[in-house]
Amino acid sequence: MAARVDLNSDLGEGFGPWRMGDDEQLLGVVTTASIACGFHAGDPVIMARTVALARRHGVAVGAHPGHLDLYGFGRRRITGEPPQELATMVVYQVGALGALAAREGVRLGHVKLHGALSNAAAVDEELADAVAEAICALDPMLAWLVPSGSEMALAAQRYGLRAVHEVFADRGYDDAADLLPRDRPGALLTGTAEVVERALRIVEEGAVVSVSGRVLPLRCDSLCVHGDTPGALETARALRAGLEAAEVTVAAFSTS
Amino acid sequence: MAARVDLNSDLGEGFGPWRMGDDEQLLGVVTTASIACGFHAGDPVIMARTVALARRHGVAVGAHPGHLDLYGFGRRRITGEPPQELATMVVYQVGALGALAAREGVRLGHVKLHGALSNAAAVDEELADAVAEAICALDPMLAWLVPSGSEMALAAQRYGLRAVHEVFADRGYDDAADLLPRDRPGALLTGTAEVVERALRIVEEGAVVSVSGRVLPLRCDSLCVHGDTPGALETARALRAGLEAAEVTVAAFSTS
Amino acid sequence: MAARVDLNSDLGEGFGPWRMGDDEQLLGVVTTASIACGFHAGDPVIMARTVALARRHGVAVGAHPGHLDLYGFGRRRITGEPPQELATMVVYQVGALGALAAREGVRLGHVKLHGALSNAAAVDEELADAVAEAICALDPMLAWLVPSGSEMALAAQRYGLRAVHEVFADRGYDDAADLLPRDRPGALLTGTAEVVERALRIVEEGAVVSVSGRVLPLRCDSLCVHGDTPGALETARALRAGLEAAEVTVAAFSTS
Amino acid sequence: MAARVDLNSDLGEGFGPWRMGDDEQLLGVVTTASIACGFHAGDPVIMARTVALARRHGVAVGAHPGHLDLYGFGRRRITGEPPQELATMVVYQVGALGALAAREGVRLGHVKLHGALSNAAAVDEELADAVAEAICALDPMLAWLVPSGSEMALAAQRYGLRAVHEVFADRGYDDAADLLPRDRPGALLTGTAEVVERALRIVEEGAVVSVSGRVLPLRCDSLCVHGDTPGALETARALRAGLEAAEVTVAAFSTS
Repeated sequence: MAARVDLNSDLGEGFGPWRMGDDEQLLGVVTTASIACGFHAGDPVIMARTVALARRHGVAVGAHPGHLDLYGFGRRRITGEPPQELATMVVYQVGALGALAAREGVRLGHVKLHGALSNAAAVDEELADAVAEAICALDPMLAWLVPSGSEMALAAQRYGLRAVHEVFADRGYDDAADLLPRDRPGALLTGTAEVVERALRIVEEGAVVSVSGRVLPLRCDSLCVHGDTPGALETARALRAGLEAAEVTVAAFSTS
Repeated sequence: MAARVDLNSDLGEGFGPWRMGDDEQLLGVVTTASIACGFHAGDPVIMARTVALARRHGVAVGAHPGHLDLYGFGRRRITGEPPQELATMVVYQVGALGALAAREGVRLGHVKLHGALSNAAAVDEELADAVAEAICALDPMLAWLVPSGSEMALAAQRYGLRAVHEVFADRGYDDAADLLPRDRPGALLTGTAEVVERALRIVEEGAVVSVSGRVLPLRCDSLCVHGDTPGALETARALRAGLEAAEVTVAAFSTS
Repeated sequence: MAARVDLNSDLGEGFGPWRMGDDEQLLGVVTTASIACGFHAGDPVIMARTVALARRHGVAVGAHPGHLDLYGFGRRRITGEPPQELATMVVYQVGALGALAAREGVRLGHVKLHGALSNAAAVDEELADAVAEAICALDPMLAWLVPSGSEMALAAQRYGLRAVHEVFADRGYDDAADLLPRDRPGALLTGTAEVVERALRIVEEGAVVSVSGRVLPLRCDSLCVHGDTPGALETARALRAGLEAAEVTVAAFSTS
Repeated sequence: MAARVDLNSDLGEGFGPWRMGDDEQLLGVVTTASIACGFHAGDPVIMARTVALARRHGVAVGAHPGHLDLYGFGRRRITGEPPQELATMVVYQVGALGALAAREGVRLGHVKLHGALSNAAAVDEELADAVAEAICALDPMLAWLVPSGSEMALAAQRYGLRAVHEVFADRGYDDAADLLPRDRPGALLTGTAEVVERALRIVEEGAVVSVSGRVLPLRCDSLCVHGDTPGALETARALRAGLEAAEVTVAAFSTS
């Protein structure tokens, strides 16, 4: 059977007068867009424009909710908030984007948590369950784009949600198949050829080689790419070209 | 035919650690609640709680979107934003509350603009039209709670939306049937008996006596009451009792 | 030698349209006010008014900086920010209040960290040092109001700052002289007589009885009181009266 | 006597994860930097870095306070705030930057209002006076960088503040020597040669040619340049080179 994978990117990450990354260029490369919802980035006007842009590029659209933390871009580790309150924050954000998308004739296909909220839900069963319940309440047909093998993937199973497993082709993994922290050697792969080769192996064999050389099974439904820098955009394009050259089908996991 | 009127109040106007007014007490008096949506007041947790509280009291629920202006509580006059962008802000806020309400098993029945955004749309045809279009895109079954006789009432007609005309029983009106600014003599009625008497005349006769003594026609589908002070809450209760004593049906204009 | 103690309270904790606590009443009880600086609560207008109010009551004034976290009131635990950046946040906030105070003819006498920022600096030597350095840069004459026995007290020594040790008369302490978490039995003392008795022992003997009954030494230069509830305000008044009845001098540690 | 002029630019206009313009490049061109203070842009960390960067480039530093309006970048027209409250906002912001600057060994030399706040104070005598009083309270030695010929220039005289008159070399002026609105023909000069020629005439002759061809007197102590686009940066460099080639002294009006 031919291999198949989605390419996703986080978009609409400006706020007010500020922009981040080149959304228009990335939309020519990816098949799925996760759009910031106003709490860590994004504002209603940017959100509506990004949805319209994605629609014109035929790119599937989902919500990318995060902590209420504009200054920290949702990356400050905020602890102590009750899981139910965080789930309520997710409902607010996805509901807001969903209404904007509907006005553009677009239906949200998925939810993907952002930054510190994602990192927390990846390892916290109670929080993962609370978010799963929230997504079910929003729309049980929504897919949940989750770090491959995280607590969120397990929560999706418990709640009957479709989990889409995400892998980073440009990041190093440890022997437990977890991402290496960004300050460790081998955490970031910088060579385009290396990234493409690794991505092919992940997609075709369902396996990744850890930083210590072990071959680990890793389910990958979607590869995450970034476009914040010119190099990142080039890598994303090379990745797509490499996948297609290997006859991997690059397609969204949902349709808007 | 027996007279009928709705009693509405703006609720959920806290943020984070702060509260405003006594929502629980007011929900024992009013038939409709307009809930702040996070831009001028309200946060997701407060919004969800207020919806749940309204549901328990059998009070109909709608959205109360405002300017993105927490510091100014949506009362700072902000001009120069394109009407389409303000309409997008409305869609974001109503969509967010709608998702939270749906999770509580509640369907939004209306939209009511807040503060400076309402004041602007009351006199600006282009802005009123943009918001009307936005409400249609959200859900054409939503009622629009508007200042009686405003540009919003006319825009509702143009867009086929149901306009619910709101009147303030404790405010003075000028000869054009517009609210007197708060700093003018006669702008605020303070005697409970006076407020109740005026409300009865408005509801039963469709007329209000202006500050100069003229009798002006005024359509009233809903009376707005406040609960920020003990006195205001007492007045609201007296108003409801007075209406019911006069065999006016006090009931929500929509059902959640 | 006659015993002496300061009574301090956190004031100016409103934002925009919202208020918290009854500052005016508390200013009749305390000798020192720590004023929120706009990041977790407070806005410039409230800050200026609170300084002016404190001056009229002859109450000494200091800055109460916190995390940039309005929604969470500075109580969300935010981790991962570099200590130097947090120190920079402190300088910004104290500088802002200092300028407002100077305009009112008031000189800031101290700094007291708020909420989660205080909890973090109480146990993190690197953060405590960074804040100590920041306070020295602002004004080496500023006192630092710190939890009795915390890392901040040690950092103050290292940097030559005057540490003012703060104790809570209405909180339970464990055997390490640390505050019991709020959800533990004995964490909150509710009886006014009990609070006053405990405060007297702390002030006169420099000792506190832990929840398990052990007598622990505890330096106390300032007792913290709250005024969020009518009961708290009554307790604060009883505390002051009880101290004065026992001929303890109740006076600010600094003069504005 | 040899002509002399300052070149100023608005810097530090990022927030959290976002950046705007290339501050480092501009600091190689200008002699004075006006640094955003956290209300419309800027955060404490960015502010401190920008001060340090300006110091290393030998560029004089001042404060650039604006409306509390991050979303609108201080450009939304916000009306109805009492002038005294806006002045309090200015004191907060300048005080905050002043403390950060002092920590870097830099003394603020001036204040320049931003965006909609500047536009309002340029034509509103009461607001201009309130800000002038605020600046005096902060430090009467601060210069006030004001639009040439504005109400702020008059208020500076009344309060004994030094007014530094600012002119835009790349903007068209009407016959009243006011800036043409950006949507009018001739509002923006795009040719570098044209901008340089106009700047020389302004600086050497104290006169500008209006859009209708009239020669108008215009006092210019400082030319404002921008660096948001590569073209703008090139124009700024050409402007400085052109001024120096004409033996105009390009130097800051204050020293930090």
